[in-house]
Amino acid sequence: MTTTTTLEQVCSAIPHPDEAARRRVQARLDQLTKPPGSLGRLEDLALRLAAIQATDTPRAARKLVVVMAGDHGITQAGVSAYPAEVTGQMVANFLAGGAAINVLARHAQARLLVVDMGVRTLVASRGPNDGTAGGSNALISRRLGPGTRSFLDGPAMSGEQALAALLAGIEIAQREADGLDLIAGGDMGIGNTSASSAILALATGAPAAAVVGRGTGVDDPGLARKRDIVERAVAFHGDWRERRGGVDLLRRVGGFEIAGLAGLMLGAASRRVPIVLDGFIATAAAVAACEICPRVRHAMIAAHRSAEPGHRVALDYLGLEPLLEWDLHLGEGTGAALVFPLLDAACKLLAEMATFASAGVAVQHS
Amino acid sequence: MTTTTTLEQVCSAIPHPDEAARRRVQARLDQLTKPPGSLGRLEDLALRLAAIQATDTPRAARKLVVVMAGDHGITQAGVSAYPAEVTGQMVANFLAGGAAINVLARHAQARLLVVDMGVRTLVASRGPNDGTAGGSNALISRRLGPGTRSFLDGPAMSGEQALAALLAGIEIAQREADGLDLIAGGDMGIGNTSASSAILALATGAPAAAVVGRGTGVDDPGLARKRDIVERAVAFHGDWRERRGGVDLLRRVGGFEIAGLAGLMLGAASRRVPIVLDGFIATAAAVAACEICPRVRHAMIAAHRSAEPGHRVALDYLGLEPLLEWDLHLGEGTGAALVFPLLDAACKLLAEMATFASAGVAVQHS
Repeated sequence: MTTTTTLEQVCSAIPHPDEAARRRVQARLDQLTKPPGSLGRLEDLALRLAAIQATDTPRAARKLVVVMAGDHGITQAGVSAYPAEVTGQMVANFLAGGAAINVLARHAQARLLVVDMGVRTLVASRGPNDGTAGGSNALISRRLGPGTRSFLDGPAMSGEQALAALLAGIEIAQREADGLDLIAGGDMGIGNTSASSAILALATGAPAAAVVGRGTGVDDPGLARKRDIVERAVAFHGDWRERRGGVDLLRRVGGFEIAGLAGLMLGAASRRVPIVLDGFIATAAAVAACEICPRVRHAMIAAHRSAEPGHRVALDYLGLEPLLEWDLHLGEGTGAALVFPLLDAACKLLAEMATFASAGVAVQHS
Repeated sequence: MTTTTTLEQVCSAIPHPDEAARRRVQARLDQLTKPPGSLGRLEDLALRLAAIQATDTPRAARKLVVVMAGDHGITQAGVSAYPAEVTGQMVANFLAGGAAINVLARHAQARLLVVDMGVRTLVASRGPNDGTAGGSNALISRRLGPGTRSFLDGPAMSGEQALAALLAGIEIAQREADGLDLIAGGDMGIGNTSASSAILALATGAPAAAVVGRGTGVDDPGLARKRDIVERAVAFHGDWRERRGGVDLLRRVGGFEIAGLAGLMLGAASRRVPIVLDGFIATAAAVAACEICPRVRHAMIAAHRSAEPGHRVALDYLGLEPLLEWDLHLGEGTGAALVFPLLDAACKLLAEMATFASAGVAVQHS
C-alpha cells in the first residue's frame, strides 16, 4: 500500500451526512417540552451532530484537542510580532499545562495531545508535566524538519513532506477515533497566519491584501510588510490557480502543522468524528482539506469567527456559520475548546428533556 | 422598617463597579502567555466579573438559576400560542427535572430554585422530584394571587402587589448571595412576552408594533392580534411616560414573575453578585429594575439576543452586547445557563494561565 493510495482511500471513506438520522432527531426535538425551534442553534447543533455521527443519540462527552506545532521559514521576512523561538517555548508551556488551551481543555474535560510537526528548537518544559494539565500532556513527535522553508520564492516543503504531514494527521485521528465524540485541531507556529493567508488567497482567489491581518499583533509597518510578503508569494505561486490539488497547495505555501491539521480533519471525517474548527489557521487547514476532499466540509462545525479578515473569507468559502464572534485570535484550539460545553449541552437537551406526553404538558394551539 | 424603606435601602446599597480591581486584572491579563487581547471577549468577561465582584480573582463556579412563574390576565385576549394552563404544567415539569432549564442547569452545575409568584393552577409533578434534577428542586411559594389582571384597560396588579413581588425577589437574592458567584433569573408565564413588550414600549418609547414578536410561536393572525392588544394597552397606560417610576410600570403592565425577577436583580446587585441576563422577559425585567435603580445595569451580563424584536430594543436601551445570537426563544433561564460555562472559562484562564516570566516565553517585539 503506497501512501498515495492511503490518502485516496481515506478520502473515499469520508461519508455523506446521515439525513435519515437527522430527520428522526428533528421529530424527537419537536416532541420535547418547548415551543418548536425555540432552542435555536442548539437544535441545529443536535441535528448536525446526529447527521455526522449517524446516530439518533449524538454525543459530545468525549473530546480531544490535538495541538500541532511547526516553525515557518517565512518568519525570516519579519512577518510576526513574536520571535520564532516562541513556537518551541509555547510547546514547553503546553506540556507544563500553563497555556490557554490547557486551561480550556481541562475546563471542557477534553484530552489534549501536543504534536511536534517540525519545531525548530524544542525547549525543556518548566512545569510539573505530571499529566494533570489538561489530560495527557505527552509530546508526540512527527517531525518533518526544523521548520519549513520560506515560501516567498519557492515551495515551503517537498511534496513528500506535505503528504507525510497529512498522513501523520490522518493516522492520529484514526487511532483516536474509537470512543471519541468530537475532535478539534489547534495550531502553534510563529508565522503561520502568513502561510494561512497565502493558502486562502490561492484557494479562493481573494486578493492577498484582503486576507492578511495582524495575526498575533503586528503594528502598522509590520502589517504593511506582511501584506507585501504575502502578495509577492501569492504572485510567485499564482500558477497553482490551475488547481493542482490540495497537497500541492500545502507543499507551496503551507506549514507542517497546517498540513497535519488538514490530515487530522480528513481522518476524523472518515471515522464520523465531528470536527470543531478553531480559528484562522485551523480554518485555512480546513480549506486545504476541502481541496483534497470537498465532502470533509460536512463534518465541520465552526466554533468562532475572529477579527482576522481572512477568517471570514475562509468560513464563507466553506459555507459555515460560526457559533461565537468574540474577537478571539490566539489559536492553539482555544476557540474550539471554548464551545465544547455548548455542543455537549445540545446533546444533553436532546437526550434528557421530557416530552409533552411524558410531562403532561399541553401542546401548542393548532 | 417599612417595605418602601427597604426598596430604597437596597437601591442605595447597589455599588459602582470596582475600577481599581478592573485595572489590576487588566495588568494580570497582559502578563499571561498569549498576545495582548487575544482572548477577546473572554478577557472582557474576566474584567467585568472582577469589577462587579470587586476582586482580583473573579469566580464563576457557584451558580444559581431562579425560575419565577406567574400567570397573566392578558392571555384572555388570545395573545399566546399556548393555553394558560401550560404555566402550571411547566412548573411541574421543572420540579420533575424534565425541562430545558433542568438539563442546562445540571450541565452547568448550577443550582435551580423554582418560585411560584402567582400561578393560576399548580399541578402535581409527574416526575421523581428527588432532588437530582438540577440541584434543589423545591418549589418556593411567594404567591401574590392566581395570576395578574388583564392590563388592556387597567393595571395588571396593585401597587402593593408590585412592591411585594420586588421584595420577594430581593429577599431570595440576598438570602442566597453568600457563597454565590453568579445568578440568573428565568421566567415561566404564558402571556409574558405581551407584558414584556408593553414594559419595553412604555420604558423606551419604542412603538408597540416594533417590540411585539411571535413569543412562543403565534401565527400571522395571532401576531396581528397581539400587536393590536399591546398597542391598545400602551395607549391606555401612555400617561406612565411622565416617568412615574419602575414600581408603577410593573403595576400597570408587568407580571408577578417579571416584578420578582426585577427584584432578584436589585438584590443580587446590592450584594455584588453578577446577573446573567436571559432572554426577552428577563431583559424586560432588567429594564424595569433600571427604572428603579439605574446603577443595577453595571451588574448585568447579557447572555444572548433572541429573534424577538423587543429583545434587541431592550439590550440597546441597557447598552449591553449579548454573548450569543443563537435564535433562542424559550426563556426559563436557558440562555443564561447556557453561557455559565463560558464565564467560568474566563475566570479559569485568569487564574490558571502561566505568565511569560513563569513559563520562560519571549514577549512581543516592542
